[in-house]
Parts: sequence; C-alpha cells; structure tokens
Amino acid sequence: MTRANLPVDGARLWADLMELAAITEPGRPYTRRSFTPLFLEGRDWLAGRFRAAGLAVRMDTGGNLFGRLEGSDPEAGTILIGSHSDTVPSGGRFDGTAGVLTALEIVRSLRGSGIRLRHAVEVVDFLAEEPSEYGLSCIGSRVMAGLMKPEMLDYREPGGERLGDAMNRVGADTARLAEAMRSDVAAFFELHIEQGIVLEGQGIDLGIVTAIAGIARAEIRFAGRADHAGSTPMHLRRDASLAAARLVLLVNEEAKRNAAASRGHFVATVGVLEQHPNAANVIPGDARLVVDIRAEDHALAQDFLAMLEAGSRAIAEDSMVARSGWTVLSNTTPAACDAALRGLLAEGARRLGFSYLDLASGAGHDAAFVARFAPSSMIFVPCREGRSHCPEEWAEPDAIAAGAAAIYEAVLRFDAEHRKPS
Amino acid sequence: MTRANLPVDGARLWADLMELAAITEPGRPYTRRSFTPLFLEGRDWLAGRFRAAGLAVRMDTGGNLFGRLEGSDPEAGTILIGSHSDTVPSGGRFDGTAGVLTALEIVRSLRGSGIRLRHAVEVVDFLAEEPSEYGLSCIGSRVMAGLMKPEMLDYREPGGERLGDAMNRVGADTARLAEAMRSDVAAFFELHIEQGIVLEGQGIDLGIVTAIAGIARAEIRFAGRADHAGSTPMHLRRDASLAAARLVLLVNEEAKRNAAASRGHFVATVGVLEQHPNAANVIPGDARLVVDIRAEDHALAQDFLAMLEAGSRAIAEDSMVARSGWTVLSNTTPAACDAALRGLLAEGARRLGFSYLDLASGAGHDAAFVARFAPSSMIFVPCREGRSHCPEEWAEPDAIAAGAAAIYEAVLRFDAEHRKPS
Repeated sequence: MTRANLPVDGARLWADLMELAAITEPGRPYTRRSFTPLFLEGRDWLAGRFRAAGLAVRMDTGGNLFGRLEGSDPEAGTILIGSHSDTVPSGGRFDGTAGVLTALEIVRSLRGSGIRLRHAVEVVDFLAEEPSEYGLSCIGSRVMAGLMKPEMLDYREPGGERLGDAMNRVGADTARLAEAMRSDVAAFFELHIEQGIVLEGQGIDLGIVTAIAGIARAEIRFAGRADHAGSTPMHLRRDASLAAARLVLLVNEEAKRNAAASRGHFVATVGVLEQHPNAANVIPGDARLVVDIRAEDHALAQDFLAMLEAGSRAIAEDSMVARSGWTVLSNTTPAACDAALRGLLAEGARRLGFSYLDLASGAGHDAAFVARFAPSSMIFVPCREGRSHCPEEWAEPDAIAAGAAAIYEAVLRFDAEHRKPS
Repeated sequence: MTRANLPVDGARLWADLMELAAITEPGRPYTRRSFTPLFLEGRDWLAGRFRAAGLAVRMDTGGNLFGRLEGSDPEAGTILIGSHSDTVPSGGRFDGTAGVLTALEIVRSLRGSGIRLRHAVEVVDFLAEEPSEYGLSCIGSRVMAGLMKPEMLDYREPGGERLGDAMNRVGADTARLAEAMRSDVAAFFELHIEQGIVLEGQGIDLGIVTAIAGIARAEIRFAGRADHAGSTPMHLRRDASLAAARLVLLVNEEAKRNAAASRGHFVATVGVLEQHPNAANVIPGDARLVVDIRAEDHALAQDFLAMLEAGSRAIAEDSMVARSGWTVLSNTTPAACDAALRGLLAEGARRLGFSYLDLASGAGHDAAFVARFAPSSMIFVPCREGRSHCPEEWAEPDAIAAGAAAIYEAVLRFDAEHRKPS
C-alpha cells in the first residue's frame, strides 16, 4: 500500500472505531445486538459524534439514524454514505462500524477542508443489518427500499416480542414506514471489510464491488427410521445420515462446477446439518440441512435450486428414506453496483496510488437494498485471514483509511460531475 | 406362535410388567433412571414382589438386587436369572424389566408347582445397565465380573457427583466391591426384547442368542476453517463437513462389505455427527463424529477400527482439513453364549412348540459381563417394528410368556442334568 498524503484522517477514524467497539457486552466482546440497550448506547454515542461534526441528526420511520450536512444546491439531491452499527453475538469491531465511521470521517474531512458540496451528504447507520432474533436482516435498508412486507413486522423473537414493536421501541414509526422511502439519493457509498481472503491473498489494497450476490437458502429434511444401531442389520436400515452425507457432497461438487463456469461469483455451502436423535447407539432417523447459495448470476442460482430439489429427491430414494421437507427459506436477486460509481471509486484509488481489484460480494449488505432505489456502490478493505463475525476480526488502520480516502475522492468527483439526482 | 399350555402364568407376568412400568416420571413415560428416587421406588416395589413370592431379598456390594430361593443341595450352586430395571430417558416398558419379571415369574411358577430344585435360583436386578449420566453402562454386572476399574468410580455426572458415591447412595458398598464377585453361578439366563426386526420380519417366536457382539466406539474430529459461506471461493475452503460426509459414506460402505463377509453379525453406524458453528452462513470449521461398531467376530472389529483410523486420515488430507482427533472410546470383546445352555433353551422351545432362530445380539447386555465368570445365555422375544428405548416399545404378552416358558423348561432340565457348578 502506498502511504499517500490522504484527504481523510485515518488516526481519527481509527480512534472512533475503537471507542465504539468499547460499547460492548463486557463478558462477550464485541457484542452490540440490535434492539438492545447497548445498541441504543452505541447510537447515542454516534449521534453525539454526528452533532460534534456539525451534522443535523435525525431518525427516519424505519429506525435508520442519519447525520446530515446540507449542500449548496437544494435541488442536487443527497450523497448517502454509511453502513450499520449493530453486531452479531461475539462479533468483531469492523463489520458495519467501519462503514458508518468512514462516512463520518469523510464528512468531517470535507468540513475541515472548507469544501462545500452542491449535494447534501448524509451519514447513515442502517437499523439491524445483521440477522436478528426476529428472523430478518437488513431491516432499515429494506424499509428504505420499500421492501418491508407488513407480515414481516409480525415476526417475533423467541421471547415473543413483535419485530414492529421492537422497531418502534428503538425510535421507528412502523405506522408510517413509507415515509422512509427516498427519491433524493443520488449516490450511495458503503465501505466494508471484505470478510473474505481474496484481497489479502493477492496483496491488493482495495476491492471495488461489482455486485452483491443474491442469496438463496433451502432447508431439506430426510426422514428414515431411528432403529437400534447394534441390532439392525445393514440391509434393513433407513439411515437419514446417509442421505445427508450424499447431499453435502452433491452440493460441493455442483458448486465447484458452477464456480468454474465463469458466470461470476458462485458458492454453495451446507452450513447447517443436524441429525436426530444424534446418539451413538441409534441409527439417525431424521436429518435437517440448510443449503446456502450465493450467486452473481441469478439464473445460475435458480438452476442450482432446481438441481437441489431434484437431487435431494433422488438421494432420498437411493438411501431408502423419505425427503420429508423442502423449503426455500429465501431467494434474493443479485444487486449490481452502479457502473459510474464503480468508475469513480477506481479513479479515486488510482489517483491515491492504491491497487484495486473488481470482485463480487458473496455476503449480503445494506447496499443491495439501496441498489433497488438509487445508484449504489461498495468498497472492500482487506481483513486478516478473512475472519469476520468473531472477536478476532481485524482490519489494519491504513487499510480502512485507504478505503475511506477512495470514497472521499469519488464523492468529490461525483459532486463535480452530477448536476441532478440520477 | 403355538399357544401351548405354558408352565408359567403369562397374565400374572404381564400384570407385573404394567405395574412396574407405572412407576415412571409422569410427564416423561417411561422413565426410571438409575440412581434416582424413582429407581429406588421401583426397586422397593420389586423387593416387595420378591418377598411376596417367598424369596430372600438382599443387595450385593455392587448394588445388584436379588431374590433368592434356596435349593435342596447347598453344593449345587446357583441358577441366576434376570436383567435390569432401570430405563433410558423416555424409554419403554420392556427393555430390562421383562427379564427381571420373567425371572420372578419362573420362581413363582416353580414354587406354585411344588417343584424343589437342587440348585438355588436367584432373581437378579442388575444395577444401572443403561448408559447413565456417569458415562458407564452395565455397572452391576460389571462389578460382579470383577471388571469395575477403580478409576471408573471417579467418573462424575454433569452435576459433579462421583459414580462411586452414587452407587453407595443406592445401597452399594464400593469399599468392598470384590465381595460381589461370584463363583457359585452354575448358569445364567436372561430374557430380553430383541430391539431389532429380525424375529418379527420372519415371524419367528424366539431368538436364541449365539453371542453378544463386542462394541467398539471411535470418536473422530476434523478441523478446517469457519470462513464466511458467502465470500470464500470454493477452491479456498477448508470445510470440515465434507470430510464428515465422506467418513459417513466410508463407514456405511465398509460395514456393508463386512456384513456380507459371513463372519457373523457386523454393523457400524455414525450415530453422532456435530458440526460447528452450524450456522447457515458459515463454512463448518469443525466436525465431530462417533462411529459405533458391533461385531460377533472381534478380529473384524479390530480390522475395521484400523481401516477407520487410516481412512479418516486420508479423508482429511483429501478434504484439506486436519484430522484433529482420534479416540477409541470403547472396545469390548464379543461374549459367546454357553453352547449347553443354548441347547437347553432350544430344546425347551421345541418342547413347547415355539419356532426359534439362532441370532447374535448387536446390543450390549448384562449377560455379556456374566459370560466372563459363568455359563451365560439369552433368549430374545420379538418386539414391534424393533422399536426400543422409546415409549412405543412393545412386545406381545404371549411373546414374553413364550420366552419365559422356554427358560423355565431349560432351568428344569439344567437342574436335572447338572450336579456341580460349572
């Protein structure tokens, strides 16, 4: 990485990151779950920082928190920059917060340089990006895109609280969700750690995201018979674990074939596998698997789902068990990042002397929802060994500063070039 | 099944079974876990029944409960008959109890017929046959065989209680365990439900057990890397679930090959498979499997263990993960049933008009420990769909009566033929 004389203050940004990270469950760093008192404490701190930077603080009806710097041209629209401040349980210090605090640092640097943009610039902390106990992720950005279905507000966490009630509890107004939809956003920029090992592996400074992969998830159940493992002869068994094992290997083989097909990023994973009763002396009678598919090419994901549906039926038949369940849990379309914004980010990186790489995001992000209503873009910074969603999650201060500086450059150029909201 | 005029009272035996079954955790039938107050309540009921049948009740230092009917010849030794009264959690009404109450019914029938045997006859309820929270099974019969190692007394249940302390709490005397060892047992008979589907499948009345298979168990762990399921390309993954799936299929293939090798009963099962973190969006970083092997031919089981040790290493290498654990959890030798006793049981079945089949027991039983110090035998009765260790466990009253009658006949013939303890 070339240590250019950056237009943002990397040390100030880093200090903010560490300060926000310290707002965590003490016994379980780094945890600041959405809808909890700690989450609100983090947001109070953020709002204070926004105010200290001279920004106007507000919350929309979707529970998204904003710090706004007005532009010189009220007709120019808004440049939105940000990410989310909630974490997974025992998460890291960078996932989400790096994007929110980068946005803050960019606005501070703009003000510090005395630059007045024509566009308003808003820092955003989207509500509850991480999967929550209510069974939904990307809640704030989903609302902003007008994609929060009324029935989703009735999702409940294990304790019984409605998602809608939880949102209202932290400042949303679910009776007026449509007011959170935006038509003034001219551009969106989100910085995020890569959560992968491509940039680190190749020694590249920055990743410019081409698209955020669609996520399809299918739950598959096999039902055999939980007979005694000692007394049931091999040829009389109906062992659900055999069908499960065959499915794991099928998913892996077919995913490798698709990944090699040069139709963009493609991965598939059996992250969840549970067999019942899971006792040493009992043949597994039931198995449940969740297959997670991420594809830049939506058609490829749909073909994979169809292959899985037929393949799991065939495997069940071969294994003398029933395929007792097939449920598509989710199936989102990929979101392309805006080509013009990608170009501006690449230009910014080049000007600053940073190496960069085009790559797809296999993880879901708020930017995918923003892409439904505005030009949306993302920049990835390398993180150590790709570790994320764990306390060991780590990104170098210089890496984050580089990403922030590239966005800063892109914002300046965008403001100069765009006279109307897209 | 031919309904002969049986020498035992099947209805009285059935009534006992149902009465003992009613001593259960009310919300979780049929549960009477060893070392619990309910277990002791069941034993109090048993001891009362023993006394009512004119038997002398005692407990040995291993916590085994006996009801003894003296014989006419003090030198003749003891015919021991029985099984166990403890259950698994949410178990059935027959596993164990059918053997204990059959023994009681045989002694009652002997007394009722005015027959005085030369041998003493003892009904035994072995302590804690089922796997318990202390990590050991067949505790009472193990003690009787002199195979309880001192360190086993230090095993602790999750709450922290020592096994030795638990045994003493229910009436054992672990300071004098050697006194429970027996040299006077001339013959042992145990009736048990088959816990399999061979007898029912072929419509056979009784199973005469050739041997109780040895049980070997190995725990295998694979360690890969729990990377993000969305952002980690297929070719950079270290997915422990792939190694686990390959091992499940290897165990199944090799077990089928061994079962077909005509070297007696052979089965192998991956009953336990756990992957971590088991989340839809994370590549499984760790997997743990427990392989259970049952073999009538000990050498075959040892060859299988060796195959598994080498095979799991090879699979780990192919799957780009580490085989991070290999532990042989248990490895017991098969126990042959006594040929003379098997002959007497077959003769008894024939005389009563019951069909029978020689078969091995894939499940472990107290009879395997008794076989270490005395001629030991088992008779199996069919159970519905092989279901066992569950509330649906079921054996027909006539089936149990048939088994009890066959043992009754064998006991009479044994007493007539054997003048000295073997």
